[in-house]
Amino acid sequence: MVLQHVPGQLSDAAKVLERCAALGEISEEDGLLVRRYGTDAMRRANELVAGWMRAAGMTVREDAVGNLIGRLGDGDRTLMLGSHLDTVRDAGRYDGPLGVMVALAAVERLAAPLPFAVEVVGFADEEGLRFGTAYLGSAPVAGRFDPAWADLRDADGVRLGDLLRGDPATAARDDLLGYAEVHIEQGPVLERLGEPVGVVTAIAGQSHATVRFDGEAGHAGTVPMDARRDALAAAAELVLAVEAAGVTATVGRIDVEPGARNVIPGRATVSLDVRDPDDATRRDAVRALHARAQEIADRRGVGLAWPGTADFPAVAMDERLSAAWGVATRLPSGAGHDAATMAAVTPAAMLFVRCRGGISHNPAESVEEADVAVAIDVLERFLHAV
Amino acid sequence: MVLQHVPGQLSDAAKVLERCAALGEISEEDGLLVRRYGTDAMRRANELVAGWMRAAGMTVREDAVGNLIGRLGDGDRTLMLGSHLDTVRDAGRYDGPLGVMVALAAVERLAAPLPFAVEVVGFADEEGLRFGTAYLGSAPVAGRFDPAWADLRDADGVRLGDLLRGDPATAARDDLLGYAEVHIEQGPVLERLGEPVGVVTAIAGQSHATVRFDGEAGHAGTVPMDARRDALAAAAELVLAVEAAGVTATVGRIDVEPGARNVIPGRATVSLDVRDPDDATRRDAVRALHARAQEIADRRGVGLAWPGTADFPAVAMDERLSAAWGVATRLPSGAGHDAATMAAVTPAAMLFVRCRGGISHNPAESVEEADVAVAIDVLERFLHAV
Repeated sequence: MVLQHVPGQLSDAAKVLERCAALGEISEEDGLLVRRYGTDAMRRANELVAGWMRAAGMTVREDAVGNLIGRLGDGDRTLMLGSHLDTVRDAGRYDGPLGVMVALAAVERLAAPLPFAVEVVGFADEEGLRFGTAYLGSAPVAGRFDPAWADLRDADGVRLGDLLRGDPATAARDDLLGYAEVHIEQGPVLERLGEPVGVVTAIAGQSHATVRFDGEAGHAGTVPMDARRDALAAAAELVLAVEAAGVTATVGRIDVEPGARNVIPGRATVSLDVRDPDDATRRDAVRALHARAQEIADRRGVGLAWPGTADFPAVAMDERLSAAWGVATRLPSGAGHDAATMAAVTPAAMLFVRCRGGISHNPAESVEEADVAVAIDVLERFLHAV
Repeated sequence: MVLQHVPGQLSDAAKVLERCAALGEISEEDGLLVRRYGTDAMRRANELVAGWMRAAGMTVREDAVGNLIGRLGDGDRTLMLGSHLDTVRDAGRYDGPLGVMVALAAVERLAAPLPFAVEVVGFADEEGLRFGTAYLGSAPVAGRFDPAWADLRDADGVRLGDLLRGDPATAARDDLLGYAEVHIEQGPVLERLGEPVGVVTAIAGQSHATVRFDGEAGHAGTVPMDARRDALAAAAELVLAVEAAGVTATVGRIDVEPGARNVIPGRATVSLDVRDPDDATRRDAVRALHARAQEIADRRGVGLAWPGTADFPAVAMDERLSAAWGVATRLPSGAGHDAATMAAVTPAAMLFVRCRGGISHNPAESVEEADVAVAIDVLERFLHAV
């Protein structure tokens, strides 16, 4: 029912798309879109959005890490809406900015004050492109700024701490009644389901590992096949086992040494990325893959080095807050989002918007105006249902 | 019978090993052995060997490409013995020099003139390390110098042509009655058989190809497993098919793009090296692998690019000349050797010497003195049996 678009409101969606397009022109580089933390492009993007926020009657500020925050209404408690305004390199227009613009459009529709303050936030860094940080924008808001980050340096030697506007601890919030984020899905699930939007149940947990097989390099012409200890062949078996592991699992990197056409690989190193909304399922899958890697290594007489597995638990969205979306379609998020950080300090909820082909982190990122209209409608009703 | 070592002749083998050790000290770099074409190290190695040749009563010269040639006896026809004196980087002592030193030791045993001239050759470049050439030393002797090689430049910009001592065409020979080469096996077959030496039946043909799978890059967290077109998974299947192809076949290189832990590989490129003494067997195997790659690509919905397969036919050693070794053990060579070039202009034969663990192109290269003694005995008798 809420998913029926009301024709008269199409203009709001068109405005959101126009604003995303305008933001898409603000880049560090000509010819492609990239906005990293602390750059002049980020400053110009914040200024543009701040103007729209003020026009909507909001008071606007930037916090100590540079998050742009527009506030409407009074009250001891604040409902925060938003997403991030930074981008990857050669980005699309919608990953991040769409959520900020939909939030702004929903706030613009408010005819009367709500019983709490509403803020629209444009986080300054979700992608971590410049310093390799995770959630540099939202982590301080959740009281989770890591002081060691201040000494990180970017590729040009610029220190992160020198880009701060104050003590990141001052960005921490204890007045939030919730955080709600609209974001493109970045996957094809809603498209497959034929649904414009869906409620995120959880942000999947992740396991990361670097796995190495140590075999024996040798002459590709003289070592008989049955005398080989080929590290790449072992790794190839693991790649196929990862694909069949029953969870979302990826080998994205593989490096072989010495890496010559006429030399049997003596060493092969692969990256492992395993994700699942259910932590037990994910950890079981990793354990099974580790056992499989050991079996492959033992059978082939090669060494296995699996130095450890980084474990990032899944973050469930808040059930009560999520109910306020009034949307039946539910799906997990395989990608991380600011909502994962915010969930540590306040109930968090996310709404995904269908994107064409599930394509993201790419200029071909695309959303339908009608789907954006649905997202604005859903967020507007959410504000009254909270 | 000929494989029984005669104790009184151990000293010749010890001398060969001493000479190989002395040559192993002549390097372009401290701390590891490397002798490339046209370097000062090659010049010093040639001078050292030339001294031993002269002491054996040979007349010594270098030809237009720098091959060192010692000649004993008269006659219109010449039997050429030898191998190469250049090395790979971080080489062992025996790959190449052992064959030259065994030839010299056999000539030193000649008590009376043979009915033909005997030459011992130390080819100036078999490994092709400096210019990427194949058989720069022996090719001109076989009348196969490629004039385009003169314009090749090494990593420092030095032009190959500037290192020549004259017209390579003058190095071509039409007076040879045969070429015989002793070389370490560089593989474990003789060690497995428990034999000190073996006669090479053929130098295996080779197929080289670069095979690419084009899938679709995507987010490792958001693209469902059943919606992926993972180029690495396709390549992994091919790697395992290559291993099971029934011939000597190797994937030594694999490159994945974009190559990040959290991105599904959109492109995977592998090298293919297939060898077999029988050309039809090798070509059938390559055809089967190509069909398999296409089946993998079609099933996975990824593209296959197999731009072509370089084909280097097998080179059979001369049956009659090989019979003169008087050795029953026979095996093919998976590696290339100067004998492959020389076979184009004269009957060619090769004798392999067992090497420890089949290890080569490595400082750990090792041969037993007793095996070297057998090789000298076999070559001595060969000279009288030709």
